[in-house]
Amino acid sequence: MRAAFQNELQVLREGLMEMNSLVATALEDASKALLTGDLALAEQVIVRDQEIDDLQAELDEKSVDILATQSPVATDLRTVVATLRMSASLERMGDLAAHIALVLRRRHPNEVIPADLKSAIETLADLSLNAVKDAGKVLDTYDVALAAVVEERDNNLDRAMDEVYAALSADDAPYSVKESVDLALLARFYERLGDHAVSVARRVVFLVTGDALDSHTPHTDVTEF
Amino acid sequence: MRAAFQNELQVLREGLMEMNSLVATALEDASKALLTGDLALAEQVIVRDQEIDDLQAELDEKSVDILATQSPVATDLRTVVATLRMSASLERMGDLAAHIALVLRRRHPNEVIPADLKSAIETLADLSLNAVKDAGKVLDTYDVALAAVVEERDNNLDRAMDEVYAALSADDAPYSVKESVDLALLARFYERLGDHAVSVARRVVFLVTGDALDSHTPHTDVTEF
Repeated sequence: MRAAFQNELQVLREGLMEMNSLVATALEDASKALLTGDLALAEQVIVRDQEIDDLQAELDEKSVDILATQSPVATDLRTVVATLRMSASLERMGDLAAHIALVLRRRHPNEVIPADLKSAIETLADLSLNAVKDAGKVLDTYDVALAAVVEERDNNLDRAMDEVYAALSADDAPYSVKESVDLALLARFYERLGDHAVSVARRVVFLVTGDALDSHTPHTDVTEF
Repeated sequence: MRAAFQNELQVLREGLMEMNSLVATALEDASKALLTGDLALAEQVIVRDQEIDDLQAELDEKSVDILATQSPVATDLRTVVATLRMSASLERMGDLAAHIALVLRRRHPNEVIPADLKSAIETLADLSLNAVKDAGKVLDTYDVALAAVVEERDNNLDRAMDEVYAALSADDAPYSVKESVDLALLARFYERLGDHAVSVARRVVFLVTGDALDSHTPHTDVTEF
């Protein structure tokens, strides 16, 4: 019975890792589509977001089922509650990847990214993808040190977003209003993806160290943007 | 024992209503600060977001405690799980109100809203505040018909955001890049506030009608923005 229960918890963890892997693919494809103007790839990301949503629904159903039938306490209860929260983060990360793809679809066949900001957007894309992948490794290994790295590296993502905003805010910024709006939103989507990756990593830390209740909500997003 | 348990559930519900009321105040003040250039009021909204965060932490701790000590099932379990989710929505709504205030702080003493877009932003502010207040009434009354109204009215908010984007995207848009970036983000913050209000209303509907598992996540945000 106890072994069966631990097995159910393991199923939850694998579900989260699967969601994370789908999010990483969606984000990688969305960035590639955006930077190369690949409309078909963008459409794929938008359509496939449903898979991530379905996986979340399935995982949440399992979590609620475990709460109802097993009445877990202590660490087991914290694990189930954390799963509900991490699945919500991952679902939202899928939405954000789809949003990035939607920016391309809205502007196609026009280029979205001005040449002089291409490398800044590539940096945002790379940093956010690394954050997502590292969060997946944290889920897999429960590696608290790596979780701390995810959190620390999020500062780089915030700085990269600030650089895009600074470029847009310069008095002699050569961008059209349309471009500026798209770039501001894109920078924000990437930064939010990083926030959610940090949130996932933090929840794993709480599970391992028990340092704080799962009720703690990371507040990476209440800063100047 | 049973009465004591129902009392605990009632405490959760009142906690959500209190969070909702703080969010409504924060949003009302943030919009007022934004539209009148009141920096002191904006600072207040930013600082007071901590109260909403603290309330969420407290409410979540209570929820997890109820799961651990009472092992609720069926409707009671759904209520506790829904509380965890609604408190997360409300906490995020507080962040978004603070973000609106941060836009003003960043630009002060410059005006954020160009004269010809003032009424469009006022519309966004009014519609989102109504959505928040109505979500609070839904929490109070469990009125499923009102929840449907909240959901339906969210279309108006989406349309109001689209109008701002259309104004920004016009080829002869007279706005500076700085203004455009702020306006694009503001429109998005208001629209996300509406999405979260819909999410709260929907979760109440699921509790009342049992139509769907709480695991269902509303997807009001995966549309063209």
